[in-house]
Parts: sequence; C-alpha cells; structure tokens
Amino acid sequence: MVDILHKVGVRSSSLDDVYDALTTIDGLSGWWTTDTKGDAAVGGVIQFRFPPGGFDMKVLETAPAKRVVWEVVDGPEEWIGTTVSFDLQQQDDYVIVLFKHEGWKEPVEFMHHCTTKWGTYLLSLKSLIETGEGQPSPRDVKVDSWD
Amino acid sequence: MVDILHKVGVRSSSLDDVYDALTTIDGLSGWWTTDTKGDAAVGGVIQFRFPPGGFDMKVLETAPAKRVVWEVVDGPEEWIGTTVSFDLQQQDDYVIVLFKHEGWKEPVEFMHHCTTKWGTYLLSLKSLIETGEGQPSPRDVKVDSWD
Repeated sequence: MVDILHKVGVRSSSLDDVYDALTTIDGLSGWWTTDTKGDAAVGGVIQFRFPPGGFDMKVLETAPAKRVVWEVVDGPEEWIGTTVSFDLQQQDDYVIVLFKHEGWKEPVEFMHHCTTKWGTYLLSLKSLIETGEGQPSPRDVKVDSWD
Repeated sequence: MVDILHKVGVRSSSLDDVYDALTTIDGLSGWWTTDTKGDAAVGGVIQFRFPPGGFDMKVLETAPAKRVVWEVVDGPEEWIGTTVSFDLQQQDDYVIVLFKHEGWKEPVEFMHHCTTKWGTYLLSLKSLIETGEGQPSPRDVKVDSWD
C-alpha cells in the first residue's frame, strides 16, 4: 500500500471557510472541478467530473473545522476503494491542511501523475480562500499529456 | 519506508534539454534554487541552498537523456540517506519525467510539505524548458508557513 501526502497552509484565521470549501458543492466547485454535483453530507455521494472522466466519492466523515474523509466508490480502477482525507488545524496565521490519498495498491505511473495534480488542486484551494479565486478544472494547471 | 512520487510532462522533443537541466549547475539554478553550486558529475556533490537551509546531494548516476540519481548526504535529518531520482522518456510531444524521492523513514508532516513543494519545483522545471523561465527559490511557489 502506498499513499499520496500533501500539506498546504492557507493564510486565513477561519477554519470554517476551509471546511466549507471541502463540504459544500459550491465550495468544492471553486477549487477542484466546476462540474461537481451530489450530496456532500455524511453517507452521501459527490460526483466530480473532469474532461477525461471523474470520481464518485462517498462521504465517510465530516468533523466541523477539523476533518473530512471520502471513499472513492467509482472512477478509475486504481482509485476505487482508496480514501481521501483532509485534516485541518489553525497554526498562527495559517489554516494547515494535511491531505492523504491512501490505499493505492501499486506505485504506478498514474499515481505519480495524481500526486502532482493533487498538489495543484490543493494550491487552488489555498488560492480560493486567500484570493476568492481558485483554479478548478477545466482551467486547472496542466502537468502532463494526461492533463 | 515511504516515497514521494511525481510526474510531469514537458512539452518538448529534446530529452537532452531536460537532462541538461538536471545535470548542470546552470540548469539546476533555473528551476530549483538560484543558489546552486558544486560538482554535478557522478561522484560529485551539489549544494542546493534556500532561505531556510539546504541540501547536499551526491550524484550517484547520470545516464544521458535517461536517468539521474542523487543521494542526500547533508540537510534536514529526515532527508539524509534518502535518494532522489528522475527518469526521462519521450512520449509523443512530451518528455515525461518520473520523479521519486525514496527512503523516508516516516510519513511525517515535513514529508507532506516536501511532496507539495517538489510538485511546484517540477512544474518550474517544465516551465523553464517550455518558456525559458522557471520559478526557482527564492521566487518559488509558497505552499505553507514553512515556505
């Protein structure tokens, strides 16, 4: 099992703002993909769509201002059954987001790609909160020929 | 043991240009940190310096247009003894760079930070080759309070 780990610090004193960006359809549309639909409450499924395809995430846990966990229930085969989590904490002037995408079976080339892409999306989340504008798909940062 | 993996695709038909950016002091200064010195030949040690500190890398392997491997011989404790590698291949219009920073003992918060930072530096490498301009330290992308 191999994991993708990231950290960003959002210059903000509002854990709630970051939490809302992770737990509302409007918030998620502002940094990951504009084509986000579904039910973001615990037990619900959120559909994230991108030009090349998409992911369905079941919401496993939402602890206000603290933690969000999803399980991938549909999407690329390598993603199904993996979990994605965001842990939040205030440290001085920053809301720290510790991100994990856990449970990859093999460190395949697609996992390399997804690591780099997740980094750009988490910086998009940071930008959304700090400036009011993220870079969600389809205007996301392109990292390679897979997009 | 846990690893950091990334992939970028540089829109270029020149494996040599990307290889040069990984194996010359001038090239490395253009995307990772402007404060790069030392001996980039196999067996040499390259000193990379950043405002918060730096890394000394011993060059273990340089296979022209194909692969570069470094071992961290000085720097933060978590980095010492880890290896950093870049594997290159041409795929259609892109030079694909598969990156690995292997041998971390624990998935500490600093590893989360370094994953996100490596992504920004690899996108800086992509930008350097594609546009002639990278974003090396000190004008690198800031990801959190650790820089």
